[in-house]
Amino acid sequence: MMLPNPTLNLSGDRFTVHYRIALADEQEARAFAEAVCVEQTVEFPEPLVPRGDIRQKIVGRIESLQPVAPQGFEAVISYAVEITGFELTQFLNVLFGNTSIKPAIRVERFDLPESLLRSFRGPRFGVQGLREYLNVHDRPLLCTALKPLGLSAADLANLAYHLALGGIDIIKDDHGLADQEFAPFEERVKLCSEAVERANRETGRRAIYMPHVAGPVDTIVERARMAKQAGAGGLLISPGLVGFDTMRLLADDDSLALPIMSHPALQGSFVTSPASGISHFALFGQIARLAGADASVYPNWGGRFSFSQEECRSIAEGAAVPMGHIKPIFPTPGGGMSLERVPEMLRFYGRDVILLIGGGLFQAGPDLVANCRDFLATVSA
Amino acid sequence: MMLPNPTLNLSGDRFTVHYRIALADEQEARAFAEAVCVEQTVEFPEPLVPRGDIRQKIVGRIESLQPVAPQGFEAVISYAVEITGFELTQFLNVLFGNTSIKPAIRVERFDLPESLLRSFRGPRFGVQGLREYLNVHDRPLLCTALKPLGLSAADLANLAYHLALGGIDIIKDDHGLADQEFAPFEERVKLCSEAVERANRETGRRAIYMPHVAGPVDTIVERARMAKQAGAGGLLISPGLVGFDTMRLLADDDSLALPIMSHPALQGSFVTSPASGISHFALFGQIARLAGADASVYPNWGGRFSFSQEECRSIAEGAAVPMGHIKPIFPTPGGGMSLERVPEMLRFYGRDVILLIGGGLFQAGPDLVANCRDFLATVSA
Repeated sequence: MMLPNPTLNLSGDRFTVHYRIALADEQEARAFAEAVCVEQTVEFPEPLVPRGDIRQKIVGRIESLQPVAPQGFEAVISYAVEITGFELTQFLNVLFGNTSIKPAIRVERFDLPESLLRSFRGPRFGVQGLREYLNVHDRPLLCTALKPLGLSAADLANLAYHLALGGIDIIKDDHGLADQEFAPFEERVKLCSEAVERANRETGRRAIYMPHVAGPVDTIVERARMAKQAGAGGLLISPGLVGFDTMRLLADDDSLALPIMSHPALQGSFVTSPASGISHFALFGQIARLAGADASVYPNWGGRFSFSQEECRSIAEGAAVPMGHIKPIFPTPGGGMSLERVPEMLRFYGRDVILLIGGGLFQAGPDLVANCRDFLATVSA
Repeated sequence: MMLPNPTLNLSGDRFTVHYRIALADEQEARAFAEAVCVEQTVEFPEPLVPRGDIRQKIVGRIESLQPVAPQGFEAVISYAVEITGFELTQFLNVLFGNTSIKPAIRVERFDLPESLLRSFRGPRFGVQGLREYLNVHDRPLLCTALKPLGLSAADLANLAYHLALGGIDIIKDDHGLADQEFAPFEERVKLCSEAVERANRETGRRAIYMPHVAGPVDTIVERARMAKQAGAGGLLISPGLVGFDTMRLLADDDSLALPIMSHPALQGSFVTSPASGISHFALFGQIARLAGADASVYPNWGGRFSFSQEECRSIAEGAAVPMGHIKPIFPTPGGGMSLERVPEMLRFYGRDVILLIGGGLFQAGPDLVANCRDFLATVSA
């Protein structure tokens, strides 16, 4: 049988992806980029691809190939917006699905036309919305995590109370808190939400508790509703564990309407190699935003992890780069930060940042509330 | 305030993870492993971890640290089963959540005790079940993909008919097929299911069509039911796109009861670096099984991708390694295979394999049905 050669009535709108190809030779890099154009679309032996619209409109197109320092090439490849089906999962598939299996290529960034962007609501709050929600307009936001794992729901709630009393804006679950028997989800969310609310009555502030909503995907929406019902002020979501589209679903849910903080658990492998995977800019910035996060957690340089200062800067840039109606979000550096690091982080990130200090708040001295107040004073100065 | 020091009533059951640490110095490797024990559990400054049950039972424990060739160490770390909450997402979180962000460490394999395994049903069919379902008992199974992207649902169905006529057992969507307007999901599934059924009536065989079910996670179960209703014989799921737990949910659904093939889209970054990420054995073997796949697609060596022969062997091993009641599944090598490669693959994989040839079936000659028959004859010989 002959392969059909259909006429395709597409809009002509295309989105572009900037890939970095870690090959020194231009001809090799071009051949690699051509293979990506096929791999990400028709995945078919190139000589057999029908010569009409499939070849002209469906196969990716190299828009440019430029050498980049220190070595390698940046290939800008465009794809017809229609091949995404205007769904997030298929967009990610076209962006990097099969090509993720190839070494020597990395997604650096992407640019989406309005016709594709309008398929995504993006962050419900974003930087401005979250500021209004928390009633904090002129300084970085403070965040900490309830830990260590093994504490009871009541113990965690007591911690939450003191942290809110001390002036922390966002008190999130540690991402290791799920629905363990020693701190069950429902009890924990109820007690922690109440504890933060009690502190708010005393301080007149608007601190929020953000539970980690993970667990079986068929229960996640239900858990999120239960959290909202119990008074939680936001949701901590780990897209590496539950999938990007689950985060998108929760962000889009008008009956929830809660801010969402994205956690990088199980996403590290995208960024551990400089030559492959997805850039920090695209993963923790652009993709997190498309998938509805209002804040994107990642490990700051000089903590327990090995992101460089430049990589952290690129995340802040990806969190803010213009993407049509998709709002800018808060970079949320953490991962072994301490009160001593705060001035440096303020200089580096400026005002639109959420500073996440977890265990470091306990290390700063025996009085947790005083430590929080120091944190707030440093940030407010 | 003092950190509480709760008494924890845990079973004592632990699961173990074998991590490979790419550090040459034993002291450094031990310090790294100790950091993992903390990072994956309490994520708290080590000196402040309460000295009682949290330190004794919640923090991970190094069971052994052994040098491995050519360089580095294998750390076997155990964790209390209870910290997984007996949920797949949190199990993955403990396995590699934050540590995925560290370079120089890779998950090699894991061993779960019965008390944790029983939280997971695993593959519904597995090797034996899928053989019975397809009524093919004594040879490898044949698989191909409907492509190229851009064909209409009717054109894809016509392809499916000829492929089934030629003797292919599993005709799956190419993973780039989602719900695009040129081949909408519902129409495609209906027409392709009918086409395969029509061929089955002519051949007396039991070929199946497996649509790629992706798209918004809140529609996935509905799409899967629609596919079942339309006569689809299985589901192609990309856990990198929709999340492992979504695959698990579909596998566990008794009203669907369909075989599931896992596709590696967007999972490549876990395996592109030999020093970090997750091993081929664990990712495409053990985790795919825990998450309910009956067959696990990956690129065979010597095709368009760069997996080595040894890595492919390890996937086949991970697909079959004893894991209590969790059934062995079919390794499904593809990614640029051709009819010429079949004899070599048969020698390498033996009988319990699904051979996936996509575009290669078109390259073998102008008569697609004849090419399929050649494929079947080679495998049956």
